[in-house]
Amino acid sequence: MKTKQRILEAALTLFNEQGERAVTTNHIAAYLNISPGNLYYHFKNKQEIIYQLFLEYEAQVLENLHVPEDRELTAMDKVNYLKKSFNGLWNCRFLHRDMEHLLSSNEALRLRYQEFFKVCLVQVGKVYRGLREVGMIALSDEELESLALNTWIVVTSWFSFLRCNLLIQSQDDISHEMLLAGIHQVFTLERPYLTDEYREQVIALQHAESPKPDWLG
Amino acid sequence: MKTKQRILEAALTLFNEQGERAVTTNHIAAYLNISPGNLYYHFKNKQEIIYQLFLEYEAQVLENLHVPEDRELTAMDKVNYLKKSFNGLWNCRFLHRDMEHLLSSNEALRLRYQEFFKVCLVQVGKVYRGLREVGMIALSDEELESLALNTWIVVTSWFSFLRCNLLIQSQDDISHEMLLAGIHQVFTLERPYLTDEYREQVIALQHAESPKPDWLG
Repeated sequence: MKTKQRILEAALTLFNEQGERAVTTNHIAAYLNISPGNLYYHFKNKQEIIYQLFLEYEAQVLENLHVPEDRELTAMDKVNYLKKSFNGLWNCRFLHRDMEHLLSSNEALRLRYQEFFKVCLVQVGKVYRGLREVGMIALSDEELESLALNTWIVVTSWFSFLRCNLLIQSQDDISHEMLLAGIHQVFTLERPYLTDEYREQVIALQHAESPKPDWLG
Repeated sequence: MKTKQRILEAALTLFNEQGERAVTTNHIAAYLNISPGNLYYHFKNKQEIIYQLFLEYEAQVLENLHVPEDRELTAMDKVNYLKKSFNGLWNCRFLHRDMEHLLSSNEALRLRYQEFFKVCLVQVGKVYRGLREVGMIALSDEELESLALNTWIVVTSWFSFLRCNLLIQSQDDISHEMLLAGIHQVFTLERPYLTDEYREQVIALQHAESPKPDWLG
């Protein structure tokens, strides 16, 4: 693997484990057994590393949210959209852990993130439109837009919600199971709009794929 | 006003305006024209001030979420619950601005907050149960619990959502109008459960009390 990519992977690991604020470029260089000078040859500063990691995250999310045009959406597609979204969040969990801080200290990232949000909201809307077209959910355009925004808020706040409200010890990390429980919670946003034709099938699939954990409510 | 209360009010003002991390006990003392020693006579450190401010916030929220037992809930009650909740958040907005940081650096606050969350979730559930009893919404117990949790997440994430996704300049502050738009958004969570009997009336009230702003979706 090239050094540049190794730096990005090391930074992602350290940021996820320790939080971005606690990790310096020197830590990253030491972790890789390379000199700080070698690191600076590839990245001017930590902000550049973060920006590059965000670009990779962004590309992954937009690929995950792609809506096929040559076939109809299925109930399993919906589950997969959510699984991919939460796994993506997990892989790059340092981002949403301290998003306000990251955005307030990096203007380029903030502008990029706000554009990303708009594009994501359109894509989430497309997914719900696809589900409406096949008759899985029934709702007005206005309801669909609100549903897309609520989905965005619950998905992107899920980590912070878990850490502030449910982790017993502040040093505990979120388990993958806790993360996936977010799928269950997001599903409840859409559930009231399921049509009679699809309700049973979709709820059964949801219970199989992301059952409600005992600790959730 | 007694010095202790003046310190709390000054701290709240400064924390809200500048963020808690940027404000020291010395700043608070200087703002009040008192000596640091005078401040320390009342509060051992900044953490104690934050904890006391949280206790006041907690008492206010629990009072706001009180469900009357001698009469039925009305659609206007629901609007008022949301108005009071968002105004309470606004008055103590430093808390949710950096909640993860506050909780990770103050174990007593973290434990208290997690208990507060549980009590709030029960209270929000009681409000929705009250609305179900009068026939305004129709939903199962499981749906009601999910609705209460989604309400909690959207309400408590609303600030962070606005700042990360919508504020044009990172130094811009959230306007009161932007805050109140959260009422509109939370209402959309409950809207699909409105019964035929109440739907028109409640939606009309909602549009009058918290219309959807143009910039929201």
